[in-house]
Amino acid sequence: MSTRLSQLFVRTLREDPVDAEVTSHRLLVRAGYIRRQAPGIFAWLPLGLKVRRKIENIIREELEAFGAQEVHFPALLPREPYEVTNRWTEYGDGIFRLQDRHKADYLLAPTHEEVFTLLVKDLYSSYKDLPLSLYQIQDKYRDEARPRAGLLRGREFSMKDSYSFDYTDAGLEVSYQQHRDAYERIFQRLGLDYVIVKADAGAMGGSRSEEFLHPTPIGEDTFVRSAGGYAANVEAFTTLPAPARSFEGLTPAEVLDTPDTPTIATLVALANEKHPRPDGRAWTAADTLKNIVLRLTHLDGTTELVVVGLPGDREVDMKRAEVAFAPAEASAATAEDFARHPGLVKGYIGPWSPAGAVLGEKSSTGIRFLLDPLVADGTGWITGANEHGHHVFGLVAGRDFVADGVVEVGEVHAGDPAPDGSGPVELARGMEIGHVFQLGRKYAEALGLKVLDENGKLVTVTMGSYGIGVTRIMAVIAESNNDGKGLIWPANVAPFDVHVIAAGKEEIVASTAEALVGSLEESGFDVLFDDRPKVSPGVKFGDAELLGVPLIVIVGRDAAEGRVEVWNRRSNERTSVALDEVGAALESLR
Amino acid sequence: MSTRLSQLFVRTLREDPVDAEVTSHRLLVRAGYIRRQAPGIFAWLPLGLKVRRKIENIIREELEAFGAQEVHFPALLPREPYEVTNRWTEYGDGIFRLQDRHKADYLLAPTHEEVFTLLVKDLYSSYKDLPLSLYQIQDKYRDEARPRAGLLRGREFSMKDSYSFDYTDAGLEVSYQQHRDAYERIFQRLGLDYVIVKADAGAMGGSRSEEFLHPTPIGEDTFVRSAGGYAANVEAFTTLPAPARSFEGLTPAEVLDTPDTPTIATLVALANEKHPRPDGRAWTAADTLKNIVLRLTHLDGTTELVVVGLPGDREVDMKRAEVAFAPAEASAATAEDFARHPGLVKGYIGPWSPAGAVLGEKSSTGIRFLLDPLVADGTGWITGANEHGHHVFGLVAGRDFVADGVVEVGEVHAGDPAPDGSGPVELARGMEIGHVFQLGRKYAEALGLKVLDENGKLVTVTMGSYGIGVTRIMAVIAESNNDGKGLIWPANVAPFDVHVIAAGKEEIVASTAEALVGSLEESGFDVLFDDRPKVSPGVKFGDAELLGVPLIVIVGRDAAEGRVEVWNRRSNERTSVALDEVGAALESLR
Repeated sequence: MSTRLSQLFVRTLREDPVDAEVTSHRLLVRAGYIRRQAPGIFAWLPLGLKVRRKIENIIREELEAFGAQEVHFPALLPREPYEVTNRWTEYGDGIFRLQDRHKADYLLAPTHEEVFTLLVKDLYSSYKDLPLSLYQIQDKYRDEARPRAGLLRGREFSMKDSYSFDYTDAGLEVSYQQHRDAYERIFQRLGLDYVIVKADAGAMGGSRSEEFLHPTPIGEDTFVRSAGGYAANVEAFTTLPAPARSFEGLTPAEVLDTPDTPTIATLVALANEKHPRPDGRAWTAADTLKNIVLRLTHLDGTTELVVVGLPGDREVDMKRAEVAFAPAEASAATAEDFARHPGLVKGYIGPWSPAGAVLGEKSSTGIRFLLDPLVADGTGWITGANEHGHHVFGLVAGRDFVADGVVEVGEVHAGDPAPDGSGPVELARGMEIGHVFQLGRKYAEALGLKVLDENGKLVTVTMGSYGIGVTRIMAVIAESNNDGKGLIWPANVAPFDVHVIAAGKEEIVASTAEALVGSLEESGFDVLFDDRPKVSPGVKFGDAELLGVPLIVIVGRDAAEGRVEVWNRRSNERTSVALDEVGAALESLR
Repeated sequence: MSTRLSQLFVRTLREDPVDAEVTSHRLLVRAGYIRRQAPGIFAWLPLGLKVRRKIENIIREELEAFGAQEVHFPALLPREPYEVTNRWTEYGDGIFRLQDRHKADYLLAPTHEEVFTLLVKDLYSSYKDLPLSLYQIQDKYRDEARPRAGLLRGREFSMKDSYSFDYTDAGLEVSYQQHRDAYERIFQRLGLDYVIVKADAGAMGGSRSEEFLHPTPIGEDTFVRSAGGYAANVEAFTTLPAPARSFEGLTPAEVLDTPDTPTIATLVALANEKHPRPDGRAWTAADTLKNIVLRLTHLDGTTELVVVGLPGDREVDMKRAEVAFAPAEASAATAEDFARHPGLVKGYIGPWSPAGAVLGEKSSTGIRFLLDPLVADGTGWITGANEHGHHVFGLVAGRDFVADGVVEVGEVHAGDPAPDGSGPVELARGMEIGHVFQLGRKYAEALGLKVLDENGKLVTVTMGSYGIGVTRIMAVIAESNNDGKGLIWPANVAPFDVHVIAAGKEEIVASTAEALVGSLEESGFDVLFDDRPKVSPGVKFGDAELLGVPLIVIVGRDAAEGRVEVWNRRSNERTSVALDEVGAALESLR
């Protein structure tokens, strides 16, 4: 096959789109792969569609290889099934809702667990029908507050979503592993670096869950990994609890004057100056206990304050807080919250006061108090004395104060020990490119999907849910395959195999290029032919660099001597090749 | 390739779905091709998706053959472009509208003229870039009041829509003809009967317009055709005006008593009994002038009454009225309308009364009066005298009454002359399967799509719009390819090339079937293999008939003698064939 650039519906742009924040967005628009229609909503031009189809087909091949079957659901779905699982409400502002002319409620589905569950319930009834893995590649919708970064986070996007159906836990493990393995093959074929991290199941419910993250500084997710092989999303990281110590030999707590120390930094400075540690070591933020007031908004709309106590060298990680308190939403307490609780002395909050416990359900404030796992029994802390300008020193957990429970909301630090003992972790940023979940029986239970087992007994089906963002993956590939001049596609998703440029006005150039394109076509190459008669070689080279076909052939004046240049876009090497050896030279570079 | 029925996600149903009104809907659901999700909204199961893809690919091939290029637009689009062309309003209740979290208006697009126009405006600026034909295959939405008939008229449906861009009228003619020719080839390849009829351009604007109708009694459209080659949608049919006659020798009109004759039938009966025609011929409905009051609702919401006078043997065809009065909406006048106009004596309305003209802008009522082209000057009529129980006989058009204009809203009768002189027409029903439009410059003008021509002058682009309903076509194919037992797919869209049935519990049956499937796969057949071990041959045969793969091979007891049966589903012939000749036998039947 071949396509003439003079006929192709594409225009390259010299200017970056004004709203483009990331490289892939800039380049995909400038090279004429996509065009913006509305915030987070794009039209796909011929080049973009070709790349997208190639990605889709790689995904299809790997899923069908283990027996997954393709179906296709509508984007427009009725409210009822999402009402049963409560997701109609839980999605909040995050989805598009609409009514038809009869005032019936619909949504543009962001994911399809409910209707897949109902479809299988509709058709299947016996354990003999299982296991079953179904998938679709389909346009999905999310009403993002700030759609940005082009295809990396759009409001309309194409997803491959799969769902597995088993009637035993062991079966689910197998289906999960099949998807996980297929995802590894898919990302390997796409040449995408990935790290598989333990993930929190979040709003999807269920138990085991892993994310495929592509490490990149523009990633939205932070993950941790140890040299020993541990990897987890920060939301799923588990802090190794500090060991409890004996109270023996610990001195009593002591309230000291600490004027003007509402922050950890001012407190540590003053403590080192006025109240140095008896053994001479300097106080650090890690010696203080910071008590952060959070406001939780529950699903039913009621709110609650909660105080989290954690070492003063750590902030609350709001993403971890989101997971820890789900389905309630956590946010910082407001000035009104403090006004309503005069027992909370801002800047000097602590669990203890001379008059008794201040934090905790049984304390004077009655506010729930949760501790970071690092605050172990027997550890001593500098913390607020609930009086302006005063802190208490040597306040010992378990002896002087107790909490209502433990909570994992402290930020993870590089060097923290991995929970599996595989050593200290490092932090990195990544972009989610795939996600595998064990949903378990949540959806099947809510929607009544049961089958008869070998003994004729009705059992609830157990499910998995597996997603790959197709359009996002295309952006991630673009993000990691480019240089200052443009895109450089991996061969198996490039819009064309080879880009032939007729460079020069001589008749021999045009006729040689035409003949070469014909012979490459015959050899099975899909060729983009820059045949534009009135465009200079320089502009053609620039367009070729921007478009990103990885192999380029320049037909120039050497054509008269039967030679052309083969240009490897990725290595930037150009080699003079005899005309009858071009096919072989390209094959060797593919 | 091969697929085992034991693994395929499908269940055949013995019962018809309760809401199914047409054969294709019943069979596609029962055979497990589609499943209902909401009114007019379906999920696609593996078999349905396979057939749909094959149809899509045939469409793609024929469009790309003449250089059309594929793009892909979102379904969710912003209001603005549709506001510019006024279609946001004109679509009325017919589209889905929604708002995002920032209260910006969006629609689920039913068709994409506006955004294609803007896309080309965005990228192209010179006559050298044209002609251009772009297309997409994409899920579209219409908020139908009564979605019915399965895929024939859904609320979510897949369309192939193309748009052509030219800068001369002659160029548009070429692009139009290219699409028209491609459509002919597509329908021929799909084995679909079609008639190309002149169509009214309707809400799309523009000039030349033709529909591809598939003749079928369940069609929603009525069309007419003459033996001489004329064909038109009834909406686009033009009545040959009756010739004007001289008034010479015509007797004066006469008001006669016609008690209790509010209908044409009672009037004709009474006229023949009490006021027989002087020449002895019986009066017929065609001798009466029926005056129908319609209410027009204009785009700005104002309403107007209009009276249409037409021969009493014809009803007003509301579809023709819709076209004749567009963009106003026409409906029957209500009781309130009559109450507000006491000059209109229901059942006895006529243009004339002894006191003067009653109908027409200059008459006593001031109501606009329009005549059917058959009511020519010099023709005499029996019509209402605007007095209860009275009609006027021999009222002559042009002499005794005049109208404000002519209107084409009378129903077309079999035997009416074709406007091109090609003889009398017959009426038939058809289902629209394709539509080609010359939009002209309407959208380009509204949205400012201009290019520089050869002389450096800005000229407005002229466009065409071309649609094929992909999912509807699949239903139409199912509708015309079935028998009492199930579907019978044409080979090039069948989900599989051949359906192999292992019929019997003998080991030789299973092993022979396995081997046969393997060898057919090797020969390039895509095989559906009914390997279900515990299902009786009778049930397997019934399923094969329902699923509709056109070629079936039954491996039964004859397997021991090296023979199987090849079953041609369409002719219902079964032939015993030696195992090593099966491939050849199937090839000969393809």
